[in-house]
Order: sequence, then C-alpha cells, then structure tokens
Amino acid sequence: MISANRKAKYRTYLDGTQSKPGKFFDWILVGLIAYSVVTLTIDTLPGNSPGLTRFLHISEVVITLIFTLEYAVRIYLAPNRWRYIFSFWGIIDLVAVAPFYIMLGFGIAGVDLRGVRAFRLLRILWLLKLARYSRTLARFRRAFELAREELLVYLLMTLILLFVSATGIYYFENPAQPEAFASIPHSLWWAIVTLTTVGYGDVYPITAGGRFFTFFVLMVGLGIVAVPTGLVSSALSQARREESDIRLAELEAEGKGDG
Amino acid sequence: MISANRKAKYRTYLDGTQSKPGKFFDWILVGLIAYSVVTLTIDTLPGNSPGLTRFLHISEVVITLIFTLEYAVRIYLAPNRWRYIFSFWGIIDLVAVAPFYIMLGFGIAGVDLRGVRAFRLLRILWLLKLARYSRTLARFRRAFELAREELLVYLLMTLILLFVSATGIYYFENPAQPEAFASIPHSLWWAIVTLTTVGYGDVYPITAGGRFFTFFVLMVGLGIVAVPTGLVSSALSQARREESDIRLAELEAEGKGDG
Amino acid sequence: MISANRKAKYRTYLDGTQSKPGKFFDWILVGLIAYSVVTLTIDTLPGNSPGLTRFLHISEVVITLIFTLEYAVRIYLAPNRWRYIFSFWGIIDLVAVAPFYIMLGFGIAGVDLRGVRAFRLLRILWLLKLARYSRTLARFRRAFELAREELLVYLLMTLILLFVSATGIYYFENPAQPEAFASIPHSLWWAIVTLTTVGYGDVYPITAGGRFFTFFVLMVGLGIVAVPTGLVSSALSQARREESDIRLAELEAEGKGDG
Amino acid sequence: MISANRKAKYRTYLDGTQSKPGKFFDWILVGLIAYSVVTLTIDTLPGNSPGLTRFLHISEVVITLIFTLEYAVRIYLAPNRWRYIFSFWGIIDLVAVAPFYIMLGFGIAGVDLRGVRAFRLLRILWLLKLARYSRTLARFRRAFELAREELLVYLLMTLILLFVSATGIYYFENPAQPEAFASIPHSLWWAIVTLTTVGYGDVYPITAGGRFFTFFVLMVGLGIVAVPTGLVSSALSQARREESDIRLAELEAEGKGDG
Repeated sequence: MISANRKAKYRTYLDGTQSKPGKFFDWILVGLIAYSVVTLTIDTLPGNSPGLTRFLHISEVVITLIFTLEYAVRIYLAPNRWRYIFSFWGIIDLVAVAPFYIMLGFGIAGVDLRGVRAFRLLRILWLLKLARYSRTLARFRRAFELAREELLVYLLMTLILLFVSATGIYYFENPAQPEAFASIPHSLWWAIVTLTTVGYGDVYPITAGGRFFTFFVLMVGLGIVAVPTGLVSSALSQARREESDIRLAELEAEGKGDG
Repeated sequence: MISANRKAKYRTYLDGTQSKPGKFFDWILVGLIAYSVVTLTIDTLPGNSPGLTRFLHISEVVITLIFTLEYAVRIYLAPNRWRYIFSFWGIIDLVAVAPFYIMLGFGIAGVDLRGVRAFRLLRILWLLKLARYSRTLARFRRAFELAREELLVYLLMTLILLFVSATGIYYFENPAQPEAFASIPHSLWWAIVTLTTVGYGDVYPITAGGRFFTFFVLMVGLGIVAVPTGLVSSALSQARREESDIRLAELEAEGKGDG
Repeated sequence: MISANRKAKYRTYLDGTQSKPGKFFDWILVGLIAYSVVTLTIDTLPGNSPGLTRFLHISEVVITLIFTLEYAVRIYLAPNRWRYIFSFWGIIDLVAVAPFYIMLGFGIAGVDLRGVRAFRLLRILWLLKLARYSRTLARFRRAFELAREELLVYLLMTLILLFVSATGIYYFENPAQPEAFASIPHSLWWAIVTLTTVGYGDVYPITAGGRFFTFFVLMVGLGIVAVPTGLVSSALSQARREESDIRLAELEAEGKGDG
Repeated sequence: MISANRKAKYRTYLDGTQSKPGKFFDWILVGLIAYSVVTLTIDTLPGNSPGLTRFLHISEVVITLIFTLEYAVRIYLAPNRWRYIFSFWGIIDLVAVAPFYIMLGFGIAGVDLRGVRAFRLLRILWLLKLARYSRTLARFRRAFELAREELLVYLLMTLILLFVSATGIYYFENPAQPEAFASIPHSLWWAIVTLTTVGYGDVYPITAGGRFFTFFVLMVGLGIVAVPTGLVSSALSQARREESDIRLAELEAEGKGDG
C-alpha cells in the first residue's frame, strides 16, 4: 500500500500538463489513440491480406490491454474511487475497453461474427479520450455547458419545424410522388436534408404547391439555423472571459502571497 | 358560479410553472401532444393493419375531446373571455380542435375522403401549443419580436434577390435548357434551391454565362444569407439582457420589502 | 416656372415618408413595381393566350410611361439637376425606363425578336427602386458601406481560394474524369458549387486524392465563408448605433430649442 | 556596393505603400500575377492552337524571369539576408519561381511530359504574393493568428466528429449499400460531404437507421460548424481594435513631438 502523497504525485504523471513525466505519458496515450483509429479504419477496407488483418487484430489486443491497465491504475490512484468510476472520464475510460471484453465473452460463447464485428467499431469512442488533453477543448466544453438550456430549446424548435415541414410536404407531394413521400416518416427525411441545406437530391418537390411550401419553410428555417451560431459563439466568448477572470484572480492571490 | 378568486387559483393550475398541480397538468398536456404527433405520423404509414388504424383514430378522438375540454375551461376561467379567444394562445387552442369538428361535419355531409384526410394533418399544429410551456422559448419569441422589422426587410431583400436571380438565369439558360428553365417561375425554383445552398441538383446551369451568373449571384447571396445570423443572435442577447434586468428589478423590490 | 419653395414642397410628395400625399404616392409606386414584376413573370410562361400577352404588353407600356413621367418630374424638381441624374437613384430611375425606349428603337429599326425579348427582362431592375422606400433598408445599405473595404478583400480572398482549389482539383481529377474536369475553367465551376456548399452533384471528385483535397479545401473554405457573417453583422450593429446617436442628437437639439 | 541608406530607400520602392515609385511597382507586380493566372487558366483549355500555346509559354518564361529578378533584388536589399530567405514572404517568393527551374532541369534531363505539366500548375501559388499588397488583408491574417489555437482545436473536433460519423454510417449502411459504404475511408467521404452541408448526392443513406443517424450527426454537426463563424468574427473585431489602438498611439506620439 502506498501513501496518499505518493498517489497524488503519481496522479500528476497521468493527468499532469505541468510535470514532465505527465506530458510524456500524455503523448504516448494520444499516439496510441491515433494509431488505434488508423488500424480500425484500415481494418474495414475490403481485400486486406490475412497477414495484415492478423497484425491489426494483435495491435487491437495490445492497445486494449494498455488502456485496461491505465483504467485500473486510475481507479487505484483516485482519491475517491467510486466517484471516479461514475465520473464523465471514468465512464469514457470504461466504454473504451468494455467492448473488447464483451466481444471476447461473445466469441467464447460462439455468437455469430457479424454482430461481433459491429461491436469492434465502438473502439472509435477512444477518440473521446482525447478530450482530456487540451486546455482549449475544455473551454469549448464549458461553452456548450453554458448554452445547454438554449441549445436544447433550439433542438426542440428544430424538431417541431421538422415535423410541421414533413406534414406539409406530405400533403403537397404525396399525390404526385407516392413513393418518395409515402408517409410522414418518409417526408421527415426530406425535411432533414432540406432544412440543414445538405440537399442530396434523392427527394425533392416537383409540384408548384410543394415548391412554394419549400420556399416558405426554408425562409423560416434559415432563421432557425442561424440560432446555434449566435448561441455557441456568445457562450464561447463568455467561457473565455471566465477563464481570464480566474487567471487574474490566481495572479492576484500569488501577488498577495509574495507581498 | 364560482368566485373570481377561485378562478384565479384554478388558472394557476392550467398555466402555472410554480404551483405543483400546474406543473403536473403541464406535463400531461405535453405528453398528449407528443403522443398525438406520434399517432399522426404512424397513421400516414402505408400498410397499417385495420386494427391499428382503428386504435389510432380512437386515440385522436379522445385527445381532441380532452383539448376541447381544456379550451372550454380556459374560456370559462379567463378574466376577459373575448380577449382570450382572440389572443395568440386562444387562436392556437381553437385551431388545434376545430379541424376535427369541421371534418366531422364534412363526414356527416358525405364529402369525399381524400380532402378529409388532408384536414386531419392539421393536428400537427398542436405542436405550437408546446410553445406555452418553456421559459427559454419565451426568450426566443421575444428575440424574434425585437428583430421583426429587420427580418421583414431581410425577407424583402431576399425576395428581390430571388426575382433578379431567376430573371438572370432565365436569360442565360432558357435557350440551352428550355424545359428546366421554361419561364421565370420555373427559374425561381432554381434561385430558391441555389441561394439557400440546398442544391438538390435537379436544375443547374450548363452554359458558361449561366455559371458565371450563378457565381456572381452566390457571392452577393452569401452576404445576404449572413444577415439573419447577425440579426437573430444580437436580438437573442438583447432579450437575455432584458430578462436579467427584470429579474434584478424584482430582487431589488423584494430587498426593499424586506428591509 | 414655379418657385424653389414650391419645388421643395412637391419633392416631399415624391420622397416624403412624413407628408400624407408623399406616403400615398409611395404606395402607388410600390404597387406599380410589384404589379410589373408579376406581369413580367407571367409573360415568360409558355402557352399564354394571345389576349393575355396583349394585355401584359399594354400594361408594360402604361407603367413605363408612368415611370418616365416620374423620372421627368424628379429631374424638373431637383435642386441640382445634373447631380440627381448622375446620383445612384437617378441612374436607377433611368435604367428602369431606358430599355423600353431602346427596345422601341430596335423594333422600329427591325432588329430580330429574341434580343428584344431579353431586353424586356431588364424591367426586373425596377425592383431596385423599392430600396428608396424603407428606413430599415437604408440601415442595411449603410452597413454594407461600412464593411465595403473588408467585403472587397473577402471577395479577393474567395477568388484566390477558388482559383487555387480549381487548379488543385484539376490536377487530381483531370486524368480520371477528363470531361467533367476538362480544364481549370471547368474546375472553377466545381470550386464555386463546392465552396458555397451548394453541391448540385453534377461534378464531384471520385479519386482518393481529389476527395482528400476537397476535404482540405472545405476546411479552409468554411473558415472563409464564416467571414462575411461577422462583417455584415458587426457593420449592421454599428449602423444601428449611429442611427440612435443621430436621433439622440436631434432630440437634444429639439430640447434646447424648446428650453 | 551601395550604402545601407540607399538600400533602405530602394526597399521602400519594393514594399512601400507610401512612396510613389513603391505604389507604381506594386501595381505592376499585381498586374503580372493576374495576367499569369489568366494565362495558366487558358493554357489548360483543350483545343488551343499551337500558336496560342507558344505565346502562353513565352509569357510564362518572361514573367518567371521578372519574378526571379524581383527575388534576387529583394535578397540583395534585405538588411538580414538569411532572415528574409526563411521568412514567410521569402519562401513564397521562392516557391513562385522554383517550379520553373526544376521543370527546366527535368526537361533537360528528359523526364516525361505529364509530370512536368502538373508542376506548371504550381504557378497558381503566385496568387499568394498578392497577400503582401493589402492593409485589410493584413488584418485578416492577424485575425487568423489570434484565433489559431481555437481554430486548431475546432479542426481536431471536426476530425473526431468525421471519424465517429463515418464509423456510425458504415455500421448502418454497409449491409444495405456494400459499394457506396464499402469501408470507413469510403464512409469518411460521405461524412465530409454531409457535415459541410455540400451534399453532392453521390452517396446518401437509404436505411431508416442510417437516416436517423444522419439526423443526429447533423444536429451535432451544425453546432460545430457554427464555431468558426464565432471564432473568426470575434478575432476580426479584436484585430480591428488593435489597429485603431496602434493608430491612436501613433497620433499621440506625433502630437507630443509637435507640442
């Protein structure tokens, strides 16, 4: 059993952006995550040689074992273990390794391969672990937190707009294009593609009524699409201000300590 | 006949975000609205079993009756009945139930089914009733009110731009694509799809002149599409400031009352 | 010959947003412009009856004569005639009527019909006359003036980006799609459609290199498309501030006059 | 050997926005750059006559020689030569002429024509030299510098989002469309085209799961696409403020010198 002091010191090695071993450790983990995403991407390519596939799978096993070790060490070093396990980062760390062991279990139990392969794709969530290693990213997270309530209302407004648009276009286009606009759920796909201005071109109105309705919906929709821009950017500048206030307060506190 | 005091108390049950029965009642209405939109959506799916269709229609009747009751109670409890009936919310509440009774009337009179089915789609307007139940949504409405005049001018500018673009592309593309750009109304469809950057790909210029004109129109258009973003986000921050001013004034008034 | 005082009074009838006859006159002109745009639009529809076409053409002649009269009266009433003629509004007023007379001249000279028809489309420029009649529109014009220099630089940046993108995609895609990306001018069309996020789908990269290049260009491009949003909205708020400053100064001046 | 004073004077001729010969020289270089981009563009057109091609190539040689001379003079006049050579502008000036000489070398060595032709396209980078000649453009560069760290984090977030989206859509669509969504790299193309709202329409989901996932990804994605708008516009206004501060300080300094 090691002392609490020692644990605190080791913790700075894991998370630390100040200590040298901490930075070194960070870069290794970031490199492992990037490497694992690349292997996952290559693994899905059709026509890989059996040798390459074998190598990619061994890579996967090794990296998962490293992340399992990291997870175990983090639990061991945490001042409050359960709090870490149920914290945002604790869950991310678990989600990053769990699929492998569940897959292993299924593999032993003899479940069919296709489902197992899909499970392997969950490795992409390792990318979320990257969010721990950047100061500026923390500012983005703070900004999304600040604007959360308004973003939720914006999402609700968008949902209402999507349903009303889908119902309207269903009314206008269903008689003319009974396959593309077969029902409101089908029309919802049109509403999503149109209001986000993606416009694939797989479904579009051909009647005069439907086109006029599209114009009307887009005029309202562009006003609504403009909303998150304002929300996110004003929240971002608020987060930046908060940060500099905190840094100022720290500097002042240091100044008093010295004086 | 119940007293005015009692009425005021019951009103808090309907609208109240503070009183407990008010909150409970709100959640029931929100749930009913969500349920009815889901049933409407499912109802339009082709190939439903007769049993499901029957169940969906009974649901519709029950919910309409509940909303009719709500409408009647709101009229009864209103301090000024005619003012409520012609208020924004009064009209929304009426529009939510009226189609059912008009439909019923038509059904009894023996009008053909297709028109009746379209009428049923008006149930989607029940979604607008949701706007009553959110504080943040009220802020959005206030923001749109603040920017109303400028948004109208923006709409006018967009309309002018659309007509000028449609006339221009008609000049360039009509000789080369006499079907897709058959007239200015046909070209307007192109202008809408292009200037909103949806770009379905059903109509696009193929001549050098038409393509150069498209570039020119898009350069101007992107500047104009940028306008609502600024309008909505500045109006939104003004609405937020107003709100906090009101809350401050309330707190001060409370402070004086206590002191 | 009428006195300068009288002229000034009549001028308020033409432009005035305060005087009653001025407002009345404004609404008539706005109505005529709207009517003439509608007739132009209908006129391009294929399959109009000869009677309708005749009626539309007579409408056109009548409205042009009214606008010619308006132009003559404006010149007559202007304090400095040449200055009005070469002012922004003077040129717009001339451009609104000139095509008709040039067309008439060509018609008499016996030039072929197709060119004449295209000339008629210039009537759409009457829409620009609408810009005279709105206070808020004046604010938009002021905002565009304030941001003019930056918008020009933005346009230059966009042009550079378009040429660099077109050259890049030409390098990657020309060997694979020698028709769609036949030359840099052909590739410019792709660059315009892609960087404005319209994406018709008539040309798109199919090689891995071209797709990676598209990703790179879009990442840079989205940052640049974001520029006018900021420019226009900050200029718009500056224009609004200027206006309220002027109104404040006017109110103060009135206050001093009264006190 | 000329004196340092003289060199400084000549330098103002090259860069100067104040001195008359400096401005004259600037306009000539800007004109040459524009001319060379036009010749490059025309050169790629199929079906040019041999005479035109010959003329374009001679133009290219002449302009390259002029820019080589400019580069040599700039090195000669620089107060610190190596610092200029490795500065941003020094590298741009070199990149503008180097391809020609490398091409010449390859041509003499007898390398195949296709590679040489691609090299010639690098002339498009001459456009970057334009960035030296505008004050407002300097403000844009300053703004991008100010927001650099945040823009990098935004790029990282976009990359993570793209990979997660591609993996998700691969899971949903690969069984239904094994060719369009053959692997994660193939799906990345879909993610790029969709999240930037370009939407060519060459790949799009057709399963209910894939469409629902697209909706989810777009809701998150629009919030993220909104980020650079805020970043760039706030950085731009900061850059503008800095500039006016500097100008104010200069005016004050002048005032003191005079007083």
